[in-house]
Amino acid sequence: MKLKRSGRMVDLTTYLLQHPHQLIPLSYFVERYQSAKSSISEDLAIIKENFEYQGIGSIMTVAGAAGGVKYIPSISKEEASAIIHEIIDMLEDPERLLPGGYLYLTDIIGNPNLVNQVGRLFSSVFSHQKIDAVMTVATKGIPLAYAVASQLNVPVVIVRSNSRVTEGSTVSINYVSGSTKRIQTMALARRSIQKGANVLIIDDFMKAGGTIRGMISLIKEFQAEVAGIGVLVEAQDGAERLVDDYVSLTRLASVNEKEQRIEVEEGNYFNQKETSEQ
Amino acid sequence: MKLKRSGRMVDLTTYLLQHPHQLIPLSYFVERYQSAKSSISEDLAIIKENFEYQGIGSIMTVAGAAGGVKYIPSISKEEASAIIHEIIDMLEDPERLLPGGYLYLTDIIGNPNLVNQVGRLFSSVFSHQKIDAVMTVATKGIPLAYAVASQLNVPVVIVRSNSRVTEGSTVSINYVSGSTKRIQTMALARRSIQKGANVLIIDDFMKAGGTIRGMISLIKEFQAEVAGIGVLVEAQDGAERLVDDYVSLTRLASVNEKEQRIEVEEGNYFNQKETSEQ
Repeated sequence: MKLKRSGRMVDLTTYLLQHPHQLIPLSYFVERYQSAKSSISEDLAIIKENFEYQGIGSIMTVAGAAGGVKYIPSISKEEASAIIHEIIDMLEDPERLLPGGYLYLTDIIGNPNLVNQVGRLFSSVFSHQKIDAVMTVATKGIPLAYAVASQLNVPVVIVRSNSRVTEGSTVSINYVSGSTKRIQTMALARRSIQKGANVLIIDDFMKAGGTIRGMISLIKEFQAEVAGIGVLVEAQDGAERLVDDYVSLTRLASVNEKEQRIEVEEGNYFNQKETSEQ
Repeated sequence: MKLKRSGRMVDLTTYLLQHPHQLIPLSYFVERYQSAKSSISEDLAIIKENFEYQGIGSIMTVAGAAGGVKYIPSISKEEASAIIHEIIDMLEDPERLLPGGYLYLTDIIGNPNLVNQVGRLFSSVFSHQKIDAVMTVATKGIPLAYAVASQLNVPVVIVRSNSRVTEGSTVSINYVSGSTKRIQTMALARRSIQKGANVLIIDDFMKAGGTIRGMISLIKEFQAEVAGIGVLVEAQDGAERLVDDYVSLTRLASVNEKEQRIEVEEGNYFNQKETSEQ
């Protein structure tokens, strides 16, 4: 198709947004729009400027025969703060309080728009690291893991508490739940992680960190590496934290069942971000 | 921010793609770009033309004081066919064959890019119906349900085989699995569906349809309505099909364990599409 600049802007923007973290040769666009390479380069410069101005990402240019452009999603500090505070406000709603001091998170996790924003937040933190897969444990971590993986353009692997016939052969480990101190099992299909892969762990809720410690053991069992850990909500717990290097969006400071009061604050997201940008 | 047309093109395209099925007042863009309404209308006309030309969706304009523009994602027949045939090719790989004639689907479901395409396929079929929520059953249906819900801008509700303390009070039903004829249970948080809601069911695999029949019963238990059913793979089964009105992307025609051969064909997606477009 032969397009004018404004038409190319629409199509290029759409294409880049749908293909994050993917190197696209300039020749692809030259052919797609039947335009000169110089025009495409100008188009991309305008998109780059705009993406950076809006804080939605950057366009990386790789020179040479094997080169091209790559869209790296990110998020501005203002937008990140707005999303995190929206989540905090939702979490502090006393209606979420369930018997035993648990919180109802189902509607937050059930909102695809919010989940996609959470994906942008985490992928932004880990966008300059080599990530080969995102791992989570069924069930509530799954949507978050996909939202992150979708931005990073890598597969998702889902750890389960039981192995199913449809998984083929699996690797299982036992781990101790940090809060209940009970021994539990988690399993993962043998085909799902390659040796040496860099795996990013994403989960919805971390209390003492037993489940995440379990996933770390499982990653080691596959002779793979932990590239990072991200959680939506971390809870303060009397027990010692079993995991120390993680990124959290929010922190559950206190739950008062009697007074029906939930206090939530920012997690360590912004500290992390600054560190990774230095 | 004050932007030139090319900059507005980038930003408007990004904004619309990130807010599908959402009515945005023109005044929002007038303020965002400090531009005249007439310029924004011209910008939107160019985007509309381009989106329609590429088959990625349409821009609906609603006139009047409560009006605005809405991006309705869709997919061209060519792109739909390419995606479905990519899935068919993947499914026919004899390496997927597991003992008992089961298929390994984990890597297909684990690919966020492919999952997002599947979301575009289903949302395109159901985009002109009133949908209030997408329902699925844990675990493999979850990523597909989110991909669809994300395009339709509605929440996801996840049915589970066991109720958890973190779900609050739940509604449970018993259903008969179509293949094994065993009685099983499924549960859903009471808060998750409103009375009268239109619920779209999405799942990865349908054999006789017992699980989907279970979800239909559960929807009725909430006094809600079934708006439609979409499955990634339907399998031929000797047993009578328990569900007849559904959209399938692919159909597992035969599995020959001895000869390690899997035959997969197109599902009824294209028939459905034509019907809904008439």
